[in-house]
Amino acid sequence: MKVAIIGAAGMVGRKLTQRLVSEGIVRGKPLSALLLADVVAADIPEGFAGETTIQTGDISARSEIDRLVAARPGVIFHLAAIVSGEAEQDFDKGYRINMDGMRHLLEAIRAAQAADGYTPRLVFTSSIAVFGAPFPETIPEEYFHTPLTSYGTQKEISELLLADYSRKGFVDGIGIRLPTICVRPGTPNKAASGFFSNIIREPLVGKEAILPVSDTVRHWHASPRSAVGFLIHAANIDTALVGPRRNLTMPGVSATVAEQIEALRAVAGEKAVSLIRREPDETIMRIVAGWATRFDASRAQALGFAADKSFEDIIRVHVEDELSGR
Amino acid sequence: MKVAIIGAAGMVGRKLTQRLVSEGIVRGKPLSALLLADVVAADIPEGFAGETTIQTGDISARSEIDRLVAARPGVIFHLAAIVSGEAEQDFDKGYRINMDGMRHLLEAIRAAQAADGYTPRLVFTSSIAVFGAPFPETIPEEYFHTPLTSYGTQKEISELLLADYSRKGFVDGIGIRLPTICVRPGTPNKAASGFFSNIIREPLVGKEAILPVSDTVRHWHASPRSAVGFLIHAANIDTALVGPRRNLTMPGVSATVAEQIEALRAVAGEKAVSLIRREPDETIMRIVAGWATRFDASRAQALGFAADKSFEDIIRVHVEDELSGR
Repeated sequence: MKVAIIGAAGMVGRKLTQRLVSEGIVRGKPLSALLLADVVAADIPEGFAGETTIQTGDISARSEIDRLVAARPGVIFHLAAIVSGEAEQDFDKGYRINMDGMRHLLEAIRAAQAADGYTPRLVFTSSIAVFGAPFPETIPEEYFHTPLTSYGTQKEISELLLADYSRKGFVDGIGIRLPTICVRPGTPNKAASGFFSNIIREPLVGKEAILPVSDTVRHWHASPRSAVGFLIHAANIDTALVGPRRNLTMPGVSATVAEQIEALRAVAGEKAVSLIRREPDETIMRIVAGWATRFDASRAQALGFAADKSFEDIIRVHVEDELSGR
Repeated sequence: MKVAIIGAAGMVGRKLTQRLVSEGIVRGKPLSALLLADVVAADIPEGFAGETTIQTGDISARSEIDRLVAARPGVIFHLAAIVSGEAEQDFDKGYRINMDGMRHLLEAIRAAQAADGYTPRLVFTSSIAVFGAPFPETIPEEYFHTPLTSYGTQKEISELLLADYSRKGFVDGIGIRLPTICVRPGTPNKAASGFFSNIIREPLVGKEAILPVSDTVRHWHASPRSAVGFLIHAANIDTALVGPRRNLTMPGVSATVAEQIEALRAVAGEKAVSLIRREPDETIMRIVAGWATRFDASRAQALGFAADKSFEDIIRVHVEDELSGR
C-alpha cells in the first residue's frame, strides 16, 4: 500500500509518518511506499524499508497535486492548511490553500478515476472551527456550522466538497474534526490557544508558563497520539458504515483550566503547578470566550474513534512520547 | 438606486422586476435603473421610466460579472442557478455556475470595494436543498446542513462564502432559503416537484392533472408573490439585526397533498378536485420521500419575513396574479 501525506512536515504529519512506519500495515496491506509532501521538505523516516518520496511544493498549484496523484497512492492524508490566524490576515492565501487546494486534490483524483478507475481513501483533517458561537455548552452532533473565521469557512467548504465527491463515488473520503491538540510539543508560540499546552509542557521541565485566562475556561482537547490514532482509524474504517455524512466530530477530553492544573498536580506535583503564573490577557480571554467547550461525538465513538480517557492521560502521553517517560 | 438582477429572465426574476417597478422605491430611494442579466435576454419591463440595461451572458465567466459590477448597482439580486436535476447530471456545469459564479461575483465586488469602497447589498437565493435526509419532521433553526445533491452542496458553499465575505465587510450579503414555489405558473414540467403545482394550476383551468404520490406527502410551500416579498424584504432589511448568521430559512406553508386538495375544493369546488388523477410513480415517490416537510423559520419571522397564511391563500394568490382573479 502506497500512502501519501500532504502536510507531512508538520507536527501531526511527522507523528503520523512515525506511526505508519512502526505499524507497517495500512488497510490490511503492508506499507510499501510513502509520499511525503509539504511546502518544506519532510524528513525521511527512520527504520522504513520501503520507498520514500519527498515532494516539496505548494498544494494550491494544480501541477503539484497532479504530481502527487500520478503516483496513485491508495491512501491520501490531507493535513495541509494555512492556520486560522494567517487565513484571517491573508484572505487570498487562505482561500487559495485551504479551499482551492482541496478542490484541486478532489479534481485531480476525479480525473485519475476517469482515466483508470482510481478511487483512493482520502482522509481530511477538518476543525472544530466550522462551529461558530453562540452555541450550547455541549454541541450536539446535528448542530449547524456557522464559522466565524475564514479558516473555519474554508474547512467547512472542504467538508462539503469531500462529502459530495464521495457521494458521487469520485473518491472514498472521510473528514475528521480534530479537537485542540494538547500537549503540543516544542516551544511556546503566539497562537491564542498556545497556553493550553504551555501551562503543562513548560512546568514539566521546570520552566515558568503564563496563564492568560481564568481557571474556569473550558475547552476540548486531544493528545497528539490520539489525533494520529483518529487519522489511522479513518484510513482503515469501512466508509459504508459512515454513510453520506462523511465528516465527523472527533471525541476529546473536555476540561477546564482548573481541571488541567489538577491533572498536572496529580502527575508532576505541587512544584510544577507553582510554575504557572497568572497574567490575564483581555485579548486572549475574548478570543477564547468564542470557542466551543464540549461536543457530543457519539457518532465517531460508535464508529470506533477513541479519545484519551482523561486530562491526566493526556499529560502522561506527553511525558511518555516527548520526555522519554520522565 | 440602481438594482441588478442576475437570473432576471426566470419566473421569479420576472415577477421581482415587475414588483420593483410597481413599488418604485428600494432601500428608501427611488428606483433609478435596472440591470437585468441572464443567459437569455430578459424582457424590458413595462411602465418603467428609468434606465433599463439588458445583459446577456454566462455568469460563470468572470468578465460578465465584472461588466455587471462595473455599473455599481446598490442592490444585487442573485437568482441564477443550474437547477437540481441538471447540476446532478452535469457535475462540472453545476459547480461552474452555482459555485464559481457566486465566488466570481463576491470577488468582483471585493475588487470594486478595494478600488472605491463599493459595498452593495447582495441578496442570494439559496434553497432548502442544503438540508439532507434523514431529518426530523420539523427542522430546527440550528439543524446542520448535509446536502445530498451537488446542487444543495453548491448552494451551501455559496451561503458560507456569502457569510464570510459579509463578516469581512466586503459585501453586505443576505441569503434566503426559499420554500418550493407553488403554484408555479406555466405548463406542467418534468421536475419531480412539478405535481405540487400541477394539481392546483391545471384543475383551475378545467384540465386534468396527475398526482404521482400519496395524499399523506407533506411539503413546504410559498407562493411566487411571497417569494418576491422575501427578496424585497431582504434587500431592505437592516443586516445589523441579522448578525453574522447571514443565511435564513424562509417561512412557508407546510401542507400535505390532502390539505392541498381540500384547499382546492374550498376555492374551486368539487369539479376541480375531480380533475386530479392518481397515478402513483415509484421514482417520484422515492425522491419526494427525501424532502423536508416543515421548518422552524422563527428567525426569519422575527426579522419580518412573512409567508402566506394558508394553502388556500396560496391558491388565491395564483388566481389573482395569473388568472385575473377568476
